Amino acid sequence: MLTGKNFIGNTLSSEGEHTFKTFDPVKNKENKWEFKEASGSEIDEAARLATKAFKVYKDFTPSKRAVFLRTIAEEIEGLGDLLIEMYMAESGLPEGRAVGERGRTINQLRAFAILLEEGSWVEASVDTAQPDRMPLPKSDIRKMLLPLGPIAVFGSSNFPLAFSTAGGDTASALAAGCPVIVKSHPMHAGTGELVASAIIKAARKTGMPNGVFSNLNSSGIAVGQTLVMHPGIKAVGFTGSIKGGMALYKMAAERKEPIPVFAEMGSINPVVVLPRAIEEKGDYWAKQYAGSITLGAGQFCTNPGLILGLEGTAFDTFTDKLGRELEEIAPLSMLHPNIQKSYEESMEEVSSQIGTHIVASYEGKLPPNYAQQKVLSVKGEQFLANPNLHQEVFGPFSLVVKCKDASELKSILEHLEGQLTGTVLGEKEELETYGEIVDALTDRVGRIIFNGVPTGVEVCPSMQHGGPFPASTDSRFTSVGVSAIKRWCRPVAFQDWPNELLPPALQNNNPLGIVRLVNGLYTKDQSGPTSKK
Amino acid sequence: MLTGKNFIGNTLSSEGEHTFKTFDPVKNKENKWEFKEASGSEIDEAARLATKAFKVYKDFTPSKRAVFLRTIAEEIEGLGDLLIEMYMAESGLPEGRAVGERGRTINQLRAFAILLEEGSWVEASVDTAQPDRMPLPKSDIRKMLLPLGPIAVFGSSNFPLAFSTAGGDTASALAAGCPVIVKSHPMHAGTGELVASAIIKAARKTGMPNGVFSNLNSSGIAVGQTLVMHPGIKAVGFTGSIKGGMALYKMAAERKEPIPVFAEMGSINPVVVLPRAIEEKGDYWAKQYAGSITLGAGQFCTNPGLILGLEGTAFDTFTDKLGRELEEIAPLSMLHPNIQKSYEESMEEVSSQIGTHIVASYEGKLPPNYAQQKVLSVKGEQFLANPNLHQEVFGPFSLVVKCKDASELKSILEHLEGQLTGTVLGEKEELETYGEIVDALTDRVGRIIFNGVPTGVEVCPSMQHGGPFPASTDSRFTSVGVSAIKRWCRPVAFQDWPNELLPPALQNNNPLGIVRLVNGLYTKDQSGPTSKK
Repeated sequence: MLTGKNFIGNTLSSEGEHTFKTFDPVKNKENKWEFKEASGSEIDEAARLATKAFKVYKDFTPSKRAVFLRTIAEEIEGLGDLLIEMYMAESGLPEGRAVGERGRTINQLRAFAILLEEGSWVEASVDTAQPDRMPLPKSDIRKMLLPLGPIAVFGSSNFPLAFSTAGGDTASALAAGCPVIVKSHPMHAGTGELVASAIIKAARKTGMPNGVFSNLNSSGIAVGQTLVMHPGIKAVGFTGSIKGGMALYKMAAERKEPIPVFAEMGSINPVVVLPRAIEEKGDYWAKQYAGSITLGAGQFCTNPGLILGLEGTAFDTFTDKLGRELEEIAPLSMLHPNIQKSYEESMEEVSSQIGTHIVASYEGKLPPNYAQQKVLSVKGEQFLANPNLHQEVFGPFSLVVKCKDASELKSILEHLEGQLTGTVLGEKEELETYGEIVDALTDRVGRIIFNGVPTGVEVCPSMQHGGPFPASTDSRFTSVGVSAIKRWCRPVAFQDWPNELLPPALQNNNPLGIVRLVNGLYTKDQSGPTSKK
Repeated sequence: MLTGKNFIGNTLSSEGEHTFKTFDPVKNKENKWEFKEASGSEIDEAARLATKAFKVYKDFTPSKRAVFLRTIAEEIEGLGDLLIEMYMAESGLPEGRAVGERGRTINQLRAFAILLEEGSWVEASVDTAQPDRMPLPKSDIRKMLLPLGPIAVFGSSNFPLAFSTAGGDTASALAAGCPVIVKSHPMHAGTGELVASAIIKAARKTGMPNGVFSNLNSSGIAVGQTLVMHPGIKAVGFTGSIKGGMALYKMAAERKEPIPVFAEMGSINPVVVLPRAIEEKGDYWAKQYAGSITLGAGQFCTNPGLILGLEGTAFDTFTDKLGRELEEIAPLSMLHPNIQKSYEESMEEVSSQIGTHIVASYEGKLPPNYAQQKVLSVKGEQFLANPNLHQEVFGPFSLVVKCKDASELKSILEHLEGQLTGTVLGEKEELETYGEIVDALTDRVGRIIFNGVPTGVEVCPSMQHGGPFPASTDSRFTSVGVSAIKRWCRPVAFQDWPNELLPPALQNNNPLGIVRLVNGLYTKDQSGPTSKK
């Protein structure tokens, strides 16, 4: 049952002074549980334990780490309805979503277990010696990825499970061989504690060192800041707002030892509607997009917040259809009163900009904390001139931009900030006709979609969730999919190291049977490089 | 012949006000050529051209980019003795080194050409659709690395060719599909201009867009700062001092759009001498290390600046031998009077620390700008307590640390900052006996060497040149070896994209014949994933 305490390694701890509660936005009242914010000395102790645990954990075999991940998945399943109820009480999200997100969280953990068992992700590379090379002999050099050290993970508000305590950041860091300290999101501290208890149970069951995981409660920004500045922390994973992400990013750059911060900070996910998409499937896309804009009360980082098309009767008709579909959809509660308030404020801000018109706005009576779904429109010229219209409105909102021609549309894309996704709706031939537009969009995004909706982020090796700034702080990495593990490792080269003392991934006979780059060729060969001294 | 002008794309330009000259440290006099520092508008124009060139250059086939790189190599060779003479006049380094470094530069360019022709470096990943998957269908998602955009490269002082104008940063960025703007190093602006002219000639010959390469002269920090802050620049490569690298790193983090700065900032490259190394091969290692410390007047980022052993007669004897060998070696000119002056100042700073003793010091008369090679010693306890002793002394210098036991040695390693390399000298069995020491050292370095010297950085796929901060700003990347290309790319995912419009690396039938991860399996198969819609 819930204790309201922090997990400092395996120990429940509540030394701090400050307490807080979570909030049920559907019932519009505080939840009963009281949480103790982590104290400075608890943060210190979590970091100390993580540093100590790292020395042991990093050397565990990949299969031992895989067992740990699989056991976490089982323990989360074992929380049963308790977890689902807590999730709903702290987020206002419906049961179906809770169950779905739990499934995603469990599948992520298992995907990383499979990655570890397969083993090739370490990018093993073997260059054997050439003692007779002229003018200088060549040493034997081998390289593979090794873990960075303790990682701080900041749970997101909008995914209490899949991007929080045991979400993608935690799963990928633990898979890499890094201990994790989670700064739990204050809006779902109870869900966080339950998941943390599952992780700790799994860690004990599978013989993981104390400190491989800690969970810190926090109600404000202090705990997170202290954590990021702690010398024991070697990298940071964050999902949330640009303001929050950039504050951590800049702090980390000012540390005595700067550390990488991978912050995924949201996006307006531009959608380009090409003429034939409307001609052939206008009704279909209007319905699909009304659904995508309002999905989960629009609280997805891949929510389509910007819909671009060429002005004219056809696009007007499509826009109207989109609006009517949107008004048909039953509104949903947002995650928290503060999020609902922010949504209203940013909607008002956008609505007050010159040239915006209301396309659709849900006008029925809304219970407290419910989101009023809305679509506005604006002319391309006005959008281009006004950066206030380029900001994310976190909620069931989208802005339709009516461009006077393809050249204006292209110019708008070129002036957009970096995005997680970009979508093109149309016929295949139009991708070539509007090649420059597609090119401009590709340059601004991490993932480009043809004839689909951006919501729904598949967990698979080919997924890219991250994009040019400010979609994320480092477009070279992803936070979803198994490649997310690459954020938490660094290559280490071993020169002339005795074969039997090398990590197994680098030994002559390839005992793990992984794909390696051996003297420039990719191979799973297990007979051993012949020219090794 | 030398013009002293900047290359703004293909155009020689000299709009700036400020002029400067380079210096011949061996002749101890200014060189005759006069260089015009780049002006603000020239920097702007270089960035504008690079941004424009990027749109074309990024879509060139890998083999077209490979031809460009090979042609640069040929054109550099074609500069013949002129380049060698200029190199020597601007660095004081001997002819053999000049020729060797030219060879390395050319080989690097060719290594990247081979990488492009092989093609698998793009990390192509294909996950085919599962339209019947329950509860939700799965989209077709494919991912590969695409170039970031224009890159700023800061030439280093100590490698006028291999880490400068057409060095590893430039070669890897051009290979990735990124235009490059070089901020030429003021100490070898003439060498830089010659190499730049070779690159421009190659660009013209092979039909590259104007702006794919620019070369900016600079005498101070202003040109570099303007360049890094320019919105057209998407990433930075730097090799040099911690002060210089961190200034750029922090500036880049404060940009409206922060960009990655890969700065390789040097290292003291700890060497652990285990007891049996002295017993069995003390004379050999003393001679090897005297050579490694003084190689190129100690002006290598992998120079062994810290030699750690267990106190006692055996280590004293080894230290004395090392000192005697060092005194036998003929001193060399440093790269520039300023570098020689810095060397003297940092040596004095270290020598003035409590507990340091002179082991060896070249006492013959030195011509101007020559380096006085020196070895000091200090007790482990004093080293541990005094961070002033942990700083790099850039020159033919090393500090021997006599530790009272293995535990103190380990503690010293744990307290060291990040390093490019670490070396262990000993017998194989000692790697196990002193396992904790080896482990502590591995944790601090990018490359760990057994029974060798750290100087000499092989250009091969398994090389790692970069390490935990402050060896580099991002330990997850390398600046030497073909993996250096990974700094300048980002993964982009294509969802449900029409097969024939995908980049060739992602098309069904794998037209490039590269290694790809297809539905979780590594394969070069060209028959095409069967389940593609």
